[in-house]
Amino acid sequence: MRIALLNPNSSQHITDRMLAEARRATGDTCEIFGLTNAAGPTVIRSRVDNAAAIDGLLNMARTLDADVEAVILGVSMDTALDALRQMLEVPVVGTTEAALATAGMLGGRIGLLTVGRALTPLYGELATSYGYAGRVAGIRGIETAAPYGAGLAQEVCAMMLDAVTSLSRDDGADVVVTVAAALCGYVPAIAAQADVPVLDGIACAAVQAEALARLRPRKASYGSFATPGR
Amino acid sequence: MRIALLNPNSSQHITDRMLAEARRATGDTCEIFGLTNAAGPTVIRSRVDNAAAIDGLLNMARTLDADVEAVILGVSMDTALDALRQMLEVPVVGTTEAALATAGMLGGRIGLLTVGRALTPLYGELATSYGYAGRVAGIRGIETAAPYGAGLAQEVCAMMLDAVTSLSRDDGADVVVTVAAALCGYVPAIAAQADVPVLDGIACAAVQAEALARLRPRKASYGSFATPGR
Amino acid sequence: MRIALLNPNSSQHITDRMLAEARRATGDTCEIFGLTNAAGPTVIRSRVDNAAAIDGLLNMARTLDADVEAVILGVSMDTALDALRQMLEVPVVGTTEAALATAGMLGGRIGLLTVGRALTPLYGELATSYGYAGRVAGIRGIETAAPYGAGLAQEVCAMMLDAVTSLSRDDGADVVVTVAAALCGYVPAIAAQADVPVLDGIACAAVQAEALARLRPRKASYGSFATPGR
Amino acid sequence: MRIALLNPNSSQHITDRMLAEARRATGDTCEIFGLTNAAGPTVIRSRVDNAAAIDGLLNMARTLDADVEAVILGVSMDTALDALRQMLEVPVVGTTEAALATAGMLGGRIGLLTVGRALTPLYGELATSYGYAGRVAGIRGIETAAPYGAGLAQEVCAMMLDAVTSLSRDDGADVVVTVAAALCGYVPAIAAQADVPVLDGIACAAVQAEALARLRPRKASYGSFATPGR
Amino acid sequence: MRIALLNPNSSQHITDRMLAEARRATGDTCEIFGLTNAAGPTVIRSRVDNAAAIDGLLNMARTLDADVEAVILGVSMDTALDALRQMLEVPVVGTTEAALATAGMLGGRIGLLTVGRALTPLYGELATSYGYAGRVAGIRGIETAAPYGAGLAQEVCAMMLDAVTSLSRDDGADVVVTVAAALCGYVPAIAAQADVPVLDGIACAAVQAEALARLRPRKASYGSFATPGR
Amino acid sequence: MRIALLNPNSSQHITDRMLAEARRATGDTCEIFGLTNAAGPTVIRSRVDNAAAIDGLLNMARTLDADVEAVILGVSMDTALDALRQMLEVPVVGTTEAALATAGMLGGRIGLLTVGRALTPLYGELATSYGYAGRVAGIRGIETAAPYGAGLAQEVCAMMLDAVTSLSRDDGADVVVTVAAALCGYVPAIAAQADVPVLDGIACAAVQAEALARLRPRKASYGSFATPGR
Repeated sequence: MRIALLNPNSSQHITDRMLAEARRATGDTCEIFGLTNAAGPTVIRSRVDNAAAIDGLLNMARTLDADVEAVILGVSMDTALDALRQMLEVPVVGTTEAALATAGMLGGRIGLLTVGRALTPLYGELATSYGYAGRVAGIRGIETAAPYGAGLAQEVCAMMLDAVTSLSRDDGADVVVTVAAALCGYVPAIAAQADVPVLDGIACAAVQAEALARLRPRKASYGSFATPGR
Repeated sequence: MRIALLNPNSSQHITDRMLAEARRATGDTCEIFGLTNAAGPTVIRSRVDNAAAIDGLLNMARTLDADVEAVILGVSMDTALDALRQMLEVPVVGTTEAALATAGMLGGRIGLLTVGRALTPLYGELATSYGYAGRVAGIRGIETAAPYGAGLAQEVCAMMLDAVTSLSRDDGADVVVTVAAALCGYVPAIAAQADVPVLDGIACAAVQAEALARLRPRKASYGSFATPGR
Repeated sequence: MRIALLNPNSSQHITDRMLAEARRATGDTCEIFGLTNAAGPTVIRSRVDNAAAIDGLLNMARTLDADVEAVILGVSMDTALDALRQMLEVPVVGTTEAALATAGMLGGRIGLLTVGRALTPLYGELATSYGYAGRVAGIRGIETAAPYGAGLAQEVCAMMLDAVTSLSRDDGADVVVTVAAALCGYVPAIAAQADVPVLDGIACAAVQAEALARLRPRKASYGSFATPGR
Repeated sequence: MRIALLNPNSSQHITDRMLAEARRATGDTCEIFGLTNAAGPTVIRSRVDNAAAIDGLLNMARTLDADVEAVILGVSMDTALDALRQMLEVPVVGTTEAALATAGMLGGRIGLLTVGRALTPLYGELATSYGYAGRVAGIRGIETAAPYGAGLAQEVCAMMLDAVTSLSRDDGADVVVTVAAALCGYVPAIAAQADVPVLDGIACAAVQAEALARLRPRKASYGSFATPGR
Repeated sequence: MRIALLNPNSSQHITDRMLAEARRATGDTCEIFGLTNAAGPTVIRSRVDNAAAIDGLLNMARTLDADVEAVILGVSMDTALDALRQMLEVPVVGTTEAALATAGMLGGRIGLLTVGRALTPLYGELATSYGYAGRVAGIRGIETAAPYGAGLAQEVCAMMLDAVTSLSRDDGADVVVTVAAALCGYVPAIAAQADVPVLDGIACAAVQAEALARLRPRKASYGSFATPGR
Repeated sequence: MRIALLNPNSSQHITDRMLAEARRATGDTCEIFGLTNAAGPTVIRSRVDNAAAIDGLLNMARTLDADVEAVILGVSMDTALDALRQMLEVPVVGTTEAALATAGMLGGRIGLLTVGRALTPLYGELATSYGYAGRVAGIRGIETAAPYGAGLAQEVCAMMLDAVTSLSRDDGADVVVTVAAALCGYVPAIAAQADVPVLDGIACAAVQAEALARLRPRKASYGSFATPGR
């Protein structure tokens, strides 16, 4: 099964980290390849960045071969997700969408973990749009510049564990999921010490892309997700 | 007061119709000028069109002079509204956002009227994102190719009146508002025969842009609407 | 454009403060005059006060001339708003309703700022009734007896700024709006130091009354807002 | 146990019908007496009527003796319910509030049955304010002038049964409750033929007033329901 | 009026405490008897306990005589409530359901008080299922092993009062209700010192069972609450 | 990967049909085996059946070997899902839960298709509990006794297609999913003729069980999903 991971930003090292996590999650059942949006911003950490990434993202999507069976949208803002879904013949999965859907099958209330406090409301908006507003226990953004270095930063692990514990104990989260490419790779290092399950959002997107591809859903021919112009 | 109307599609005649409606609504207190997105699709009637319009739309927004005091986003899908809001120093108003906020001050339940039935769910998604899901009585899309001709098409007036009556009588709408550039100019021709108030969405956006400009709100320096990179 | 500001309480000095704020917001495009409910309570700060003000408020509304084009309901509890809306031929705007609708076009999540902590749930109920429950980041009531004195009390400014900062930083508010006649006039003194936009609720009501008047909506002839007895 | 039934309108015959229904429901455990608002409108069938009834209603409430243990607010619009609740030392129950709370313990989804289609949105607003929006299957208003005559009008019984069947079969209501003083007395005549339980709203209010009185709740001394001015 | 109280756990002393509270609430108008589920877990304090109690609970319900007029489900998790409601000809009331419905008629926002913090999300799920999510101010679980001893533990009273005060002052609860059999009997000892009304959940269920029985609702013959197999 | 499919009813032929569908969906990456609840009702088509199946279902779950990596709860009422999730060390997926989560990643609004109209509200309750109430376009129950015969009944295919078309065209569903074991196997026969994607709920549960198993989430040690008694 061939799956494409589209990175709307221009940082190849982020694509690489996401690919590594996606491949670890799906194992050898899938062949996942990545595309990096050379025309996008270096990183997406604002609403403007998000919008600015769309043009190149759509162009990348148009280059996909017919043998791609599903698409992972590798960005926690789920950039232009509905447009890609309408445009393509195969399933497209957003990272935060998949994070919520997956975590939601492990417990009642979901904690979200990201980088940067000022942007946490964005994830609340996404959760509302998917219907998960009432199930989000809390959204925490750790403040660190460390996560993109080589290897895992111990400081980040400690901050993540603190946030997970607070999400669980103070906010009542039954499960926590990361929604930040910058946190890719950290979950295995902390999961065993957490008191609730902790998932990686990119890993969720990868297994969901595989799941949807298995179902081979027909493309809509009516409604707002039908291919435009038909 | 100088107000810019940004049309994300490339059709100058749509810009002109929206400008005429916006000017009629605000009278001589505002000077409203229009910009048309030459790089956009001819018309925006799908999720893909909506995404494809964003790049040119952001570029248009970047050209605005410092003396512009507010921006009307002249498209009922409220394309990239949150990105424009973050990017610019002055208020930006989306058409459907303004339609809901304005109509909501004239009654309890709101009817939305657009062109094309298959796309009506998109307006439901927007209403949900703004918090108005529980106040939307119904969303009707009339099926017609007529509205862009010269003058008002009698057929369209009749279809609109039928839809307004059904929204009021069957769905319980206390007020109806159009959310379609294609319907610009029609409201005065039918309002007197309707049994609830009928508003034009572009007119709503225009008076809201003026209202927000009067308040001269400070730009956010913190949070997800602060200017990026500061 | 002639606009009436109805004050349901009996305090002329509150009417005067609200008028000053309303006029500052709308500039010279409107002529705003105020009516004070001599039969009302001195101030409205309870559910009972609110109900007790209604009879005189309805009587004031009945005295309005035909040349009034919109009505500002100058009280943050939006006293009898739906009854006035049904009774009158012209648009009626509630203060908290306008505060939410206006602030909601400047950001995603709204902070409300009032006087007195015990009454904050009332604003939550109003927000729910308008559909804004999911968009209210927080409601803060500062505890002070100062605001009705001559000039601005420095103590009040400091408390307001603290509350705004907490609403923004702790609760995630993208914009803050005052919902208390007692806080009229304070916003300009603090807005420049706040990290999100801060609006005055009465100013919001004033610009919204003007906006609705510009649209000249027809009166409903069917449904629960049609003139009774027709 | 002494319970007062307050009728905000001025029609003694409506008070009498509601009293008969309330007494039938509670049996001989309660002594229920009625007060009619001589200063109120003849009947409450609009938002304006509702507001116009409040002043006299508050005055009636102020006359209640200390031995009254609960109050039935005998009007389906739950006129000034929160103000009465704050004002009085004893529990106050609104008719529609009680109808929803009671019916909600007999099934999942609730059908509401009233007189007059144009006013049905008002009941939707009340249901939303109490949290029952998601549990209302439908609201039907039968169109008839008959119900206030002597005895039961066969025409009304037939219309009610049709509406109950449609609420059950088409809308999925598990239980139906009347919210209209005009329909008092009809439920026993139709309940046996209905395929879901049918309750009378006034009867619900009566048994709820008794239930709350039995619990002898302490009056709040803090918050928005504490007696004003303390 | 004969009312059965079903205790899904196997602890007779819990049945006895609940019976005492139910009888105190309803006085001599009802004859309430208790059944204890010998096949159930000793206490229900997990989702698994809750499920494990169901089989015996259904069996107990099948033994009820035809002269039982209502059933109190004496457990705050409202175990198998919808199944019992469908199975039996007479009304069945859940403890938390009744707690929310009853408390909701004394104020706007409701505080819930239970034993054990880790389980508080369960009550949030129940509140959501009944439509009360938006009205729950907070859910507090006190941590104590004391409540099942003889007499009232002073330590528990103190913890309860602290929680009630925090629910009122910090969370904005207008009324607080206990949802824990373990807290039965404590409310009279603390209510007078609380600043909002405090109710006992079992007492609420008892008066609601009586209220529903008075209405003698017909059994549904259609829909998901009709007796199975008919 | 070993996955168990638990059928809470006692019908082996239903287990077989569900297994066939689950295996078709997951292909050869999983080894799925089925367990049938000999102590359960023949079929689960009421709330009472649902409760009556729980005891045997819990017992089946207790027999699972340590090498089982995920569990499919093969029943569209998601019987005792939260208890199984707490009890077991590995992920457990409910059919309707998985149907909603999966379908929700293919479009905005979801149509549900089941057998029997009277029970459709049950699926609405489940959707509400998962947060999907606002995304359910409609729930249709076809009326037929045919689906359990050998092979596919043409009559059922026709009824399903009609329902799918109505869900899409009348209700605005972007995707439809079956929630009824009785409809297992039908989706491939109709999907190509439908104008939106149609999924099988059991297939969704199967791919979701696989997806969750891949993530190897740690068991919660705190909160309401931690193993009881630890």
